[in-house]
Amino acid sequence: MTTIARPVTRPLHEDRFFDPDPAIRRGARALYEETCRLPIIAPHGHIDPQILAENAPFPEPTSLIVQPDHYILRLLYARGIPLERLLEGDPRKVWQLFAEHYFLFHGTPTGAWLDHELHEVFGIAERLTGETAGRTYDAIVEKLASPEFRPRALFERFNIEVLATTDQASDPLDHHRAIRESGWQGKVIPCFRPDAVFKIAARDWPVQLDALGREHGAPLVDYGEFVHALEDRRLFFKRMGATATDHAVLEPYTGWLSPDDAEVLFQQARQGEASRADERRFEGHLLMEMARMSLEDGLVMQLHPGAFRNHNQSLFERFGPDRGGDIPVATEFTRNLRPLLNAYGNDPRFTLVLFTLDESTYSRELAPLAGHYPAVRLGPPWWFHDSLEGMRRFRERTTETASIYKTAGFNDDTRAFCSIPARHDLARRVDANFLAGLVARHVLDVSDARRMARALAYDLAKETYKL
Amino acid sequence: MTTIARPVTRPLHEDRFFDPDPAIRRGARALYEETCRLPIIAPHGHIDPQILAENAPFPEPTSLIVQPDHYILRLLYARGIPLERLLEGDPRKVWQLFAEHYFLFHGTPTGAWLDHELHEVFGIAERLTGETAGRTYDAIVEKLASPEFRPRALFERFNIEVLATTDQASDPLDHHRAIRESGWQGKVIPCFRPDAVFKIAARDWPVQLDALGREHGAPLVDYGEFVHALEDRRLFFKRMGATATDHAVLEPYTGWLSPDDAEVLFQQARQGEASRADERRFEGHLLMEMARMSLEDGLVMQLHPGAFRNHNQSLFERFGPDRGGDIPVATEFTRNLRPLLNAYGNDPRFTLVLFTLDESTYSRELAPLAGHYPAVRLGPPWWFHDSLEGMRRFRERTTETASIYKTAGFNDDTRAFCSIPARHDLARRVDANFLAGLVARHVLDVSDARRMARALAYDLAKETYKL
Amino acid sequence: MTTIARPVTRPLHEDRFFDPDPAIRRGARALYEETCRLPIIAPHGHIDPQILAENAPFPEPTSLIVQPDHYILRLLYARGIPLERLLEGDPRKVWQLFAEHYFLFHGTPTGAWLDHELHEVFGIAERLTGETAGRTYDAIVEKLASPEFRPRALFERFNIEVLATTDQASDPLDHHRAIRESGWQGKVIPCFRPDAVFKIAARDWPVQLDALGREHGAPLVDYGEFVHALEDRRLFFKRMGATATDHAVLEPYTGWLSPDDAEVLFQQARQGEASRADERRFEGHLLMEMARMSLEDGLVMQLHPGAFRNHNQSLFERFGPDRGGDIPVATEFTRNLRPLLNAYGNDPRFTLVLFTLDESTYSRELAPLAGHYPAVRLGPPWWFHDSLEGMRRFRERTTETASIYKTAGFNDDTRAFCSIPARHDLARRVDANFLAGLVARHVLDVSDARRMARALAYDLAKETYKL
Repeated sequence: MTTIARPVTRPLHEDRFFDPDPAIRRGARALYEETCRLPIIAPHGHIDPQILAENAPFPEPTSLIVQPDHYILRLLYARGIPLERLLEGDPRKVWQLFAEHYFLFHGTPTGAWLDHELHEVFGIAERLTGETAGRTYDAIVEKLASPEFRPRALFERFNIEVLATTDQASDPLDHHRAIRESGWQGKVIPCFRPDAVFKIAARDWPVQLDALGREHGAPLVDYGEFVHALEDRRLFFKRMGATATDHAVLEPYTGWLSPDDAEVLFQQARQGEASRADERRFEGHLLMEMARMSLEDGLVMQLHPGAFRNHNQSLFERFGPDRGGDIPVATEFTRNLRPLLNAYGNDPRFTLVLFTLDESTYSRELAPLAGHYPAVRLGPPWWFHDSLEGMRRFRERTTETASIYKTAGFNDDTRAFCSIPARHDLARRVDANFLAGLVARHVLDVSDARRMARALAYDLAKETYKL
Repeated sequence: MTTIARPVTRPLHEDRFFDPDPAIRRGARALYEETCRLPIIAPHGHIDPQILAENAPFPEPTSLIVQPDHYILRLLYARGIPLERLLEGDPRKVWQLFAEHYFLFHGTPTGAWLDHELHEVFGIAERLTGETAGRTYDAIVEKLASPEFRPRALFERFNIEVLATTDQASDPLDHHRAIRESGWQGKVIPCFRPDAVFKIAARDWPVQLDALGREHGAPLVDYGEFVHALEDRRLFFKRMGATATDHAVLEPYTGWLSPDDAEVLFQQARQGEASRADERRFEGHLLMEMARMSLEDGLVMQLHPGAFRNHNQSLFERFGPDRGGDIPVATEFTRNLRPLLNAYGNDPRFTLVLFTLDESTYSRELAPLAGHYPAVRLGPPWWFHDSLEGMRRFRERTTETASIYKTAGFNDDTRAFCSIPARHDLARRVDANFLAGLVARHVLDVSDARRMARALAYDLAKETYKL
Repeated sequence: MTTIARPVTRPLHEDRFFDPDPAIRRGARALYEETCRLPIIAPHGHIDPQILAENAPFPEPTSLIVQPDHYILRLLYARGIPLERLLEGDPRKVWQLFAEHYFLFHGTPTGAWLDHELHEVFGIAERLTGETAGRTYDAIVEKLASPEFRPRALFERFNIEVLATTDQASDPLDHHRAIRESGWQGKVIPCFRPDAVFKIAARDWPVQLDALGREHGAPLVDYGEFVHALEDRRLFFKRMGATATDHAVLEPYTGWLSPDDAEVLFQQARQGEASRADERRFEGHLLMEMARMSLEDGLVMQLHPGAFRNHNQSLFERFGPDRGGDIPVATEFTRNLRPLLNAYGNDPRFTLVLFTLDESTYSRELAPLAGHYPAVRLGPPWWFHDSLEGMRRFRERTTETASIYKTAGFNDDTRAFCSIPARHDLARRVDANFLAGLVARHVLDVSDARRMARALAYDLAKETYKL
């Protein structure tokens, strides 16, 4: 591969991600101007609350930026770099290796987020290359040592109004409590994610169940007590600020079991005898329970189906989850969600936020469901689709059927703390550009577009998640 | 949600829906200029022929515009407005409620059609908002009282060359007869839609069968007589002007049953014992029969598969069909249609117009089928996809494989009489813009594009439907 | 259909296929300038090597351009022209018929390739129409008689650095040998495609097995010997220059059989008793074997799944394969490929190039797989999707997740020798335009885009196919 000489600095262009057409660009810039300084609402993500509870300085760039980010590891691995070289050994050398392969991220959202992060958060003017790697590393190390780069200071500088974490059902939420008791004003709330106790065919289910029982304060010996524990924990999470639950399933299958069947499955699981088919039925039933509880406690229900987890068995065995290649599968919503939506979808107390990795469902199933059932909202483009083109496709395929007013605003869904502003900025730019395109084609008035830009950047997330 | 002040008037922009690029816009405008005044060919839709048979004045705006339009009801319901509030009570109040929520339709095709309808048909200069609702209502009421707003006068003003309705197999077509005998020159033809007598697992199948037998003039006691009745009714429809049949199925499954199996299923159905699986096989067999009959009587066969009807059971039970949330499902054509296409797809006497709600089939299955079998034509983007972006996707994904010359032109498919010109205008604009984009990229000559624009707006619909 | 008068000449526009936006067009032109003269790497296609072995003059235009090209035959047939009229009788009359229907190809990639071929290869200035057909035919006949239009001269003029053919496992590769022994320097290499001996349910499988045994030099009486023959033939192909294998399957199902099961299936097949389900399992097992062998011999493995072959039974029976309507089906990769990728996908010695006819898998399955497994590369948009819009969709849906560096550059996949430069030129233009769009939106630097343009046009194909 030929390497062509290039300038080593690239300040971020102020009109980046906007279409070059002058009418659209002008419109996009104007809309973006109105949203770019709005506070960040982050109702779904994977930031470790310990970071903000302890507020300790981040150690150095590699463990902050490279190693926790499976988006980065994934593509480096795919081009032939062994994970060992990225996860072990001298952080400076890993940074160097990362920088030498930075060209892989050109044209990807990860590249766009990293450019923003390096430039806007850390003030790095040079492009990241093998040649500039050392200087960049040193510059970030220096920044991280200063008080302005402590987690809480960054939280405030990022203008985060509220940040939701994602927490297991058995989590005591000690970090959240510590944050609240610290007197710091940053709003960090938990989200109830009970997946681990739903997956009755998983090897570690008994461990997870025990952990839940321990937090609940009673052993979970029958299905009734199990459900009671879930109800209890939801109330505890709610008292700790939670406004939502979250559920990751392979298929969005839903349907009630009879009380007897539920009990039988639960006891089979306790004997270690639950199959994958049992798990599917049990999860489908528990999603019905979750919706029922949402009507009572008001927690918003999120559903993230369609990821085949840990596709790469040997990598998973060596390096654990989130490094084992999670690959999407085709997902069916219309038939799978019918039992749940028939039971609860018309109830004004219920909100169900749907996500997908299968873009073919946007116009075929999701927008029609959201355009009909009062309870349904569409979550923003998820994971691989949280990108310029992915966001464009989402808007183009859902807006005409569901309107933007049945979508849930933006979620950053990130594990990488310093990427939060980059992700929200990208989303606001893409939405501004999308709306400006509609104005330029005289589909929307400017005044409509302004209202919609603000809704997408701020209002809809607050409204959907009851924040 | 913040409401930003906006101007209350918005005349429709003459270049609406065209790309802002000057080369494309100029080209689109020129092509549109050549097609915008062509007569409307409406070969598939759901206008009630009684309207034109009686030619009575429309009573008032709500029952004309809001209540029959499930596109409008759907989205209002989805944002939490109970259907009772929209379907019952004072029409003025319903209109007010609709107007207050009109922002939901910004950026949707329903919004584009309504804007056209209000402005071009009713001459309303103001935008519809809660504030202007009353004045708008009154202005429309006044118009509707004048002779120029009687149905036939509008039909002529809309420049409709031919309008096809959609009628049950047992329909005596009295309204069509009345129109023909009235001396009025408007061409309103029926379309043979025998779905109700194909759905042998439905509760009301016996009633539907009786109705068919009554019109046929003999009780339908065996399968042979049933098929004979269908043949007869097709000929009756043809004598009344029909050139096409239409079939809505969940899956486009086709395949012959043996004569014995057909008879057994038919008798099971008469005993009320047909299952959904039986119905699927029976429908697949009847589609084969329909194609066979088409070879004989020359009626064009339309297939509309893939809608899961009445998804929302409780709403369906209270408010009936078309309000119970019809939601698309993934649809398979390649294997399902093989028996039918192997039997009849090479026959020059046969035309099969395929529609879909599953856009992933456009490039994967539908364009390759239309690009091979002489009998196959692709119907225009259907329902949720009858929109700016939907039409663009359809053209982009089918033209390169099937050419525009294997598509069927435009269908408005509407239940809302006054939206007919809006829908055809939108389609002509989008097609002009699509072709102008190809000219601007030097894919097409201007002369090719002119021929194609005319074909899409007029010629192809006439040719396909033998009008 | 109205025919509008049009100019009879249309030189190809130098900016064809570029977006009209000035910033994008300027950028696309500059990038294309850097790639348009790079040699052609053609690692996958269907050119008959006999043409280049014999180097005889091509006889006349119809048998050169129309009759071998199933893209052309397909669409003419679909508009109602019987295949007999195209395949039999006077070539001049067939050419006339083709020319009269040339409007069908406007806006299709076939039209773009033909325009390029007629203009750039044969120097025809006039547009092809019924009126110009005779003159065009005569002009091509005259050219074909000259030495500059012999196959090898054209190969050199086309600037082909390497051309891979596609050859059965039992092929003695005599033409390849003749080319090598002729002293001509053109590089023409075989590709190992053993499909015919994998399809154990096919009627001609015994014949195919015998042919393989004959070339292998020993009768293939058991599974062990069969596998041994495959290993042997791969090495023979490799000695003759091959760097890749290719496999067409209905589903990309993979999975080991036990040695006993493999033997049982093989013997069943020899008795003519293998079912389609047996074939599926046997093929899934042989794909595992192929991957295993690739680790040893280094041949790159290509997989082309998802075409339902010979959909149109009666046409297939009369005219044979490639005229019987091959129609795509929905294709599943995530689960189907898991066994193969778990076994070999992490091995640096292995390269697997994946193709699809199901565009819904681009962003859902293929890009995530390529963005994770080191072995996986994405082949270029295949067949119906080898088009302007198809290539745009491919880039837009795969680049953000997999980067361009996990794609395999361009394949022309053609049977039409004179279309080779047209197809590569179109791909280079579309890629230049795609990258220029990213530069114009400030997603990429110009320097990144230049590197990427060159990679897409040349480097990635060489690297992926080890050329």
